[in-house]
Amino acid sequence: MAPDAKRPVLAIREVGPRDGLQMAKAIMPTAAKLLWIDAMVAAGVRDMEVASFVPPAALPQMADAADVTAAVRRQHPALKVVALAPNLRGAQNAAAAGAQVIIVPVSASEAHSRSNVRRSREEQVAEVARITAFAATLGAGRPRIEAGISTAFGCSLQGIVPEADVLRLAAALATAGADTVSLADTLGYASPSQVKRLVRGVRREVGAARFGHLHLHDTLGTALANVYAGLEEGVGGFDGALGGLGGCPFAPGSVGNAATEDLVYLLELEGFDTGIDLAALIAARAVLAEALPSERLHGRVAAAGIPRTYRLSSTVHEALEAVQ
Amino acid sequence: MAPDAKRPVLAIREVGPRDGLQMAKAIMPTAAKLLWIDAMVAAGVRDMEVASFVPPAALPQMADAADVTAAVRRQHPALKVVALAPNLRGAQNAAAAGAQVIIVPVSASEAHSRSNVRRSREEQVAEVARITAFAATLGAGRPRIEAGISTAFGCSLQGIVPEADVLRLAAALATAGADTVSLADTLGYASPSQVKRLVRGVRREVGAARFGHLHLHDTLGTALANVYAGLEEGVGGFDGALGGLGGCPFAPGSVGNAATEDLVYLLELEGFDTGIDLAALIAARAVLAEALPSERLHGRVAAAGIPRTYRLSSTVHEALEAVQ
Repeated sequence: MAPDAKRPVLAIREVGPRDGLQMAKAIMPTAAKLLWIDAMVAAGVRDMEVASFVPPAALPQMADAADVTAAVRRQHPALKVVALAPNLRGAQNAAAAGAQVIIVPVSASEAHSRSNVRRSREEQVAEVARITAFAATLGAGRPRIEAGISTAFGCSLQGIVPEADVLRLAAALATAGADTVSLADTLGYASPSQVKRLVRGVRREVGAARFGHLHLHDTLGTALANVYAGLEEGVGGFDGALGGLGGCPFAPGSVGNAATEDLVYLLELEGFDTGIDLAALIAARAVLAEALPSERLHGRVAAAGIPRTYRLSSTVHEALEAVQ
Repeated sequence: MAPDAKRPVLAIREVGPRDGLQMAKAIMPTAAKLLWIDAMVAAGVRDMEVASFVPPAALPQMADAADVTAAVRRQHPALKVVALAPNLRGAQNAAAAGAQVIIVPVSASEAHSRSNVRRSREEQVAEVARITAFAATLGAGRPRIEAGISTAFGCSLQGIVPEADVLRLAAALATAGADTVSLADTLGYASPSQVKRLVRGVRREVGAARFGHLHLHDTLGTALANVYAGLEEGVGGFDGALGGLGGCPFAPGSVGNAATEDLVYLLELEGFDTGIDLAALIAARAVLAEALPSERLHGRVAAAGIPRTYRLSSTVHEALEAVQ
């Protein structure tokens, strides 16, 4: 099958070095982070969230955020380098270190907002406006500002998060100047039809071109079902963390992200081009495991092995016939 | 929310006592099997595959198939009692023991057919015709004969299984008199769009009313995504095994079924009525674990705990609003 016969390229964002590490029991040294990032870039990852610009006292794992970001920018010119910043100060530091995309988390749950960024949702929208105003002063080559709506599908602190709240927040973030708006299922509570409704709703509020990524956690085993629901809505960007690491320290019960290996497997099986070599990505788990023995890695494809039908599956062939 | 506001009742078939046990390293005593089955029935399971009528030499775990089937029929009059039989002799024994549904496995992969039932696919279709002829002699109250197309989505022995082979086989099985035809992803190779295509195709061949269950394995983490694809096609019956046990001894690499707990969670989250009390079902894992300490139980919901938003999620409410 010629590569150009495949379905469109999808943006897989590896968030392991940020979200994946923020619950880790041990600090990963900067050099080890860079080796791990190298291995994932070698596997074909082209979009990666590498650090979080938060006060080191709040998250010692991210004390080297500026060093990591700057080193990755230097060493991997073709990689889209993404960093998280919860406030203007963090965004300024991320921009100075060379981040090309800055994700600003905004909770849909008022309770999580106060726990995670110690501000109300409204105050955090105002912070996004300050950050986009700052970014505009940087002119051409400025970082893109992506507002990431966390707890968009439910919250362990607040419980149910009304979908109307998410839509209002998305509209407010667009007004505040966010380049894109993403949806994050911080707790892993989303259902596939909820994903579809919220993707449609947010696109209606902010415009389809400004919809960013789906960031899904696999707490309850539903991440790939939710990815598939997103695919059916035409979502083009998905987050994952190698080995399914991750979770939010300020949202009790939040555990691993969708494992990037399993995400790539599903998307390629569905005929999409992720640009990622699955075997090489799985090999990068060894680099991570050696540097971070405190964490148990998840992921079904790594455990079972890549089926020999992976590249030539009837799925891909017949799906292509169906769309042609 | 009133119970009658929910989406239609779905048939969840628990296959743990059959598929779940056939790869187990230890023999589960008959009394332990019955206690485990009791616990699952108490949780609301109304359809269960309780045994496999194969020669005891081939599968010592199933040497008590007749005893288990007869005891379950006596003790649980409201349960639909299902058994597997690979040939006429097995079907006769299953019927004598009181099985109300007899599943006859027919491989879509020629290689798996020879490994699993030591017959070609064509010979196995002829065996199904003999079984349906036998069943017809039993008159009213006869067992229903369900042909289960195994390796329908790919095979570790043969590799790719052409979808056209599956459709031809489904048509032949309908002609052979099978009451229903089910699709089994023995290896866990299915992708969601492949599920949709094959469900549509098989329904075209056999008629929508004769489509049986989707039987999905979670080898590569895709089971729930494939369940969702089946739901979107209107499939009304899904198999699962408590704790995600299972696999086929004659298909290398075949591991666990979709975990019933996770399946119930997803379906209820999508607003369907499974009739199963999720907390009680999770409690039944302890009965299984005590009787079968050799097996590691899987399942994400049991590991994470049922979210407190489970029963009152915005998903259910807003999905219902959308369809009303």
